Amino acid sequence: MNLLERIQYPADLRQLDITQLPEVCKELRNCIIHELADNPGHFASSLGVVELTVALHYVFDTPDDRIVWDVGHQAYGHKILTGRREQFATNRKLHGLRPFPSPEESPYDTCTCGHASNSISVALGMAVAARRQGLRRKVVAVIGDGSMTGGLAFEGVNNVSCIPNDMLIILNDNDMSIDRSVGGMGHYLHKLHTSSTYNKVRYKVAKMLYRWGWLNDDCKGRVLRFNNAVKSLLTNQHNLFEGLDIRYFGPEDGHNVIGLVQTLQRIKDMEGPKMLHIHTVKGKGFEPAERDATVWHAPGKFDPETGEILETKAEGDVPPKFQDVFGLTMLELARQNPRIVGVTPAMPTGCSLNLMMREMPDRAFDVGIAEGHAVTFSAGMARDGLQPFCNIYSSFTQRAYDNIIHDVAISGLPVVLCLDRAGLVGEDGPTHHGAFDLAFLRPIPGLTIASPLNERELRRLMFTAQQPGQGAFVIRYPRGRGVCADWRCPLEAIPVGQGQKLRDGDGCVAVLTLGPIGNVATQAILDAEKATGLRIAHYDMRFLKPIDWDILAEVAHCRHIITVEDGVVSGGLGSAVLEYMADHDCHPNVVRLGLPDRFVEHGTPRELYKIVGIDRDGIRQAIVECTSGHRPLSEGED
Amino acid sequence: MNLLERIQYPADLRQLDITQLPEVCKELRNCIIHELADNPGHFASSLGVVELTVALHYVFDTPDDRIVWDVGHQAYGHKILTGRREQFATNRKLHGLRPFPSPEESPYDTCTCGHASNSISVALGMAVAARRQGLRRKVVAVIGDGSMTGGLAFEGVNNVSCIPNDMLIILNDNDMSIDRSVGGMGHYLHKLHTSSTYNKVRYKVAKMLYRWGWLNDDCKGRVLRFNNAVKSLLTNQHNLFEGLDIRYFGPEDGHNVIGLVQTLQRIKDMEGPKMLHIHTVKGKGFEPAERDATVWHAPGKFDPETGEILETKAEGDVPPKFQDVFGLTMLELARQNPRIVGVTPAMPTGCSLNLMMREMPDRAFDVGIAEGHAVTFSAGMARDGLQPFCNIYSSFTQRAYDNIIHDVAISGLPVVLCLDRAGLVGEDGPTHHGAFDLAFLRPIPGLTIASPLNERELRRLMFTAQQPGQGAFVIRYPRGRGVCADWRCPLEAIPVGQGQKLRDGDGCVAVLTLGPIGNVATQAILDAEKATGLRIAHYDMRFLKPIDWDILAEVAHCRHIITVEDGVVSGGLGSAVLEYMADHDCHPNVVRLGLPDRFVEHGTPRELYKIVGIDRDGIRQAIVECTSGHRPLSEGED
Repeated sequence: MNLLERIQYPADLRQLDITQLPEVCKELRNCIIHELADNPGHFASSLGVVELTVALHYVFDTPDDRIVWDVGHQAYGHKILTGRREQFATNRKLHGLRPFPSPEESPYDTCTCGHASNSISVALGMAVAARRQGLRRKVVAVIGDGSMTGGLAFEGVNNVSCIPNDMLIILNDNDMSIDRSVGGMGHYLHKLHTSSTYNKVRYKVAKMLYRWGWLNDDCKGRVLRFNNAVKSLLTNQHNLFEGLDIRYFGPEDGHNVIGLVQTLQRIKDMEGPKMLHIHTVKGKGFEPAERDATVWHAPGKFDPETGEILETKAEGDVPPKFQDVFGLTMLELARQNPRIVGVTPAMPTGCSLNLMMREMPDRAFDVGIAEGHAVTFSAGMARDGLQPFCNIYSSFTQRAYDNIIHDVAISGLPVVLCLDRAGLVGEDGPTHHGAFDLAFLRPIPGLTIASPLNERELRRLMFTAQQPGQGAFVIRYPRGRGVCADWRCPLEAIPVGQGQKLRDGDGCVAVLTLGPIGNVATQAILDAEKATGLRIAHYDMRFLKPIDWDILAEVAHCRHIITVEDGVVSGGLGSAVLEYMADHDCHPNVVRLGLPDRFVEHGTPRELYKIVGIDRDGIRQAIVECTSGHRPLSEGED
Repeated sequence: MNLLERIQYPADLRQLDITQLPEVCKELRNCIIHELADNPGHFASSLGVVELTVALHYVFDTPDDRIVWDVGHQAYGHKILTGRREQFATNRKLHGLRPFPSPEESPYDTCTCGHASNSISVALGMAVAARRQGLRRKVVAVIGDGSMTGGLAFEGVNNVSCIPNDMLIILNDNDMSIDRSVGGMGHYLHKLHTSSTYNKVRYKVAKMLYRWGWLNDDCKGRVLRFNNAVKSLLTNQHNLFEGLDIRYFGPEDGHNVIGLVQTLQRIKDMEGPKMLHIHTVKGKGFEPAERDATVWHAPGKFDPETGEILETKAEGDVPPKFQDVFGLTMLELARQNPRIVGVTPAMPTGCSLNLMMREMPDRAFDVGIAEGHAVTFSAGMARDGLQPFCNIYSSFTQRAYDNIIHDVAISGLPVVLCLDRAGLVGEDGPTHHGAFDLAFLRPIPGLTIASPLNERELRRLMFTAQQPGQGAFVIRYPRGRGVCADWRCPLEAIPVGQGQKLRDGDGCVAVLTLGPIGNVATQAILDAEKATGLRIAHYDMRFLKPIDWDILAEVAHCRHIITVEDGVVSGGLGSAVLEYMADHDCHPNVVRLGLPDRFVEHGTPRELYKIVGIDRDGIRQAIVECTSGHRPLSEGED
């Protein structure tokens, strides 16, 4: 670790000779492998951009020049080179380094980048800002081919060509997003890369010009510009990007750090928007990851020598992950109901729709990173008689909000939206917490919104949602495992809008919960009963909308109602309960527990739920305090 | 009107000989011109697609075949040909024909299409549904070049090429969205159309083949396929769409109905996804509209003979439109503050940012139909020191929801979001009402959310929002005119989170309002005071977030609080008030007035506000009833 230890900041890197960079890359790669073996994180993406990261910080004057990473998965090398090598062991841990680049953490981190496809728009904004302020600052967006399928990236590219700017877009093409990248763009890039006609002609013409002495190795810059000119001549608008008036360079080998540095040095001062297309291998330099980049996207702990993934073996019968219950139940339902189809925007493995894609490839669609399209495409299928289940992570559903309202809800189409990763997701932090879904979906007319208490309930809700006569139906559930080892219950319908009483009370306190956090509340209630001597009622609401008026009428006579939800408290279950009580002239004391009105940091889910006060202890305490007359204030109150 | 009168449904059209179609087009165009002269609506778009509409219904077996219109502006001809000629005079009127195609209105209307860019995704869903059900149904998406700049359209195109389907995309290229279409895509299509090399080669080769006898006028189908082949040969991936594996035909003259019919007949049965690129002129056949399509997008009443637009002249000093106050104040602020820039997604005329674009073209950006990019681009500029004002219509802001959360709010960037067309917009109906913004924005941490009582307050809020130290700041205001003829007040800051007391009360009833609906409430309060003899307090909250705790503490002691907002009642101002009261153990009777939990139809704003009960009379009645012990129930309650 000789060179790397001398690099605290990119300025140190820039002191090195270009010939030393391959060694820096080697050390940086080793550093990432060894750090992540022990402290899990996003692995394969970061390995793929080691050379690019080194080249960028070597060529550009960071942090004054701006590097905008699209999705921070890939930015571990960037972190290590920008003053955070020593803290890197705290990566993704509570109060440690953040999971994605964050301007609040480092001036080298230029923007929040948890959600894909935003880099070009952000970078264009920065390039315009630099120009307006008369700065000669360079702005570089680094975007993967997977992110290029997102509509936002296209909107950005489309706009780059009509606002004066000198930005550079680096298209990091590894033929992958998390699973394989899908869609025309993927094919397109592949063809662009392998277009033999183009490459042959370029090669021949270049050879000819060398022979004539017009070109030689000393004027490679001219070769590069020449190549571009040939392309333009050869074909009228050779490719998409040139068609959009963006100068196109590449494809280049993204693992040749010296080549990258030379290319970047040549093109960095060119005027106008530019795109450099590089090819990289996800997981590069760690053979098991190169072989299976999907598994090694975020592999957990592993042995850096053998490449063995050290799975934390569960003992005995452990409950399954909610995502697997979704995936397996999809298969069961689809076998029974030929109208069922599945849709995922680039998360087949993450949501377990891959099970259905394997068995029924013509009925399950991975549409790429394209949440809006996923929903609207589902709407089209629903309109003409199919029964789509569209699975999106809760926080990414924010990208399909208008599609849910405009394309699904206005017509009440029978699209089932399964929102995985609802609530606090843990180490991925504020960009990935599914905090807002309950609050932003509840105002939409006609939507059914449900959350299962456990795996069995998830199955029943999925069965219910696909029954004839249902309209748009949202089922949200968290990341990770549930509570029922024995989860394969028969598929039976649940009456829509009907919650369930889990425990009788003595009329003083009723706890209303939504979703699996109800299981935590169950324990808290037992604790609180011991502390207070009261018998506390507990209802699993199941449905946020339509909310169960029978339950609300029943609990309206209690002195205290405590609502518990793993979503933001403004506008969710607690607000729905308050609205009912106000509309029916009932005035119980209502305490709303949920996520606070601030972005929650990263850490383990256990740590985070404790911090926001809706773990077992927090809920117990809230119950005890409200019955003792000490009403707990919402976080942030004076 | 000979032929048109014989066409009740497309089946009647299909009885005609192809040679009669130009006459049908002429009559249909005249019909549209004369209907719209008297009953205003979207004019120029519909005129531009008269021939296409006739050709599509002539060639395709509608309604079994599916035509998916992207943005229903253009669908008036479609309505007239599909059983609605006689009701067409009711278009856009309360209980009359809907402003945009609507499956609830006609089986010929295949999807909700008020928001741009969704047609390809919907049509792909329908094509997949047809295939799964073994139907030979054809599916056609008709999308304008403006809509093609939307990310959703790109996500759709990208996905079309990787799911087996036979759909046809018709790209209606009129070099316009509402104002001129912007961005690389626009240039790209223009170049595609005018590419002289390509056209010359095609022409020469075709002439040669004619000479050789390989081609003649009887085998035009072969010519068409041949043209495609030439293109593919000539260039490796000739254009974007072929690059994405979509067969590309055109560009063709979109006003030659016989040519269109012949082309559509030739390509309709071809397998695989296809794109037909046609050129049309917005406003075609009505000379004033051809000259200035922006003015004639939705011109209001006009004289069909002279082309004079009959403006309803306002008498005396009328209050300005909110949008003009925005546009003029932007200019004033931008002259003072060099950091200010303006952004609009394709609505420079609609939001009056065109004023700034004219005076400061390098500081005001129309980014095309790309709401997500508009916000993220603004975030990039804000990150590097500029002060963007990004103006988006309220209902279109649903498309930028994640961008607001992820790219702006997490970092608290100083982006000012001005949401025009908030509340009920009137004749454009449910897709365009700005009903949800308050409810979906309120849960976002750190956002300031304000709505001005009148034009002067709008100016003050805009001034406040751009002051140093402000974070993300939303200002929402309605379509149309305000109340202050004398609106040019000095620019003074308003303390963030501070509402204002408009009227003192006697402690029994307090009315809390947000935004210009407060002016309606003022009148209603006077009426109610007469009816009840009470003195009723009135507060203009100004800020939904942070909400004014001083006012809430003051009114907490009233017996009745009535909240009035022109947004959906679930999750908005009323809920915020309930949350405060619950958190502070206060139990006044709170009556929440606002938009109901259903999609509100179309009609004049006056009619609609009356229907939903928040006009002067409705508010008066609510006050009177709650004080007399008859608590009004929310709409939809038993």
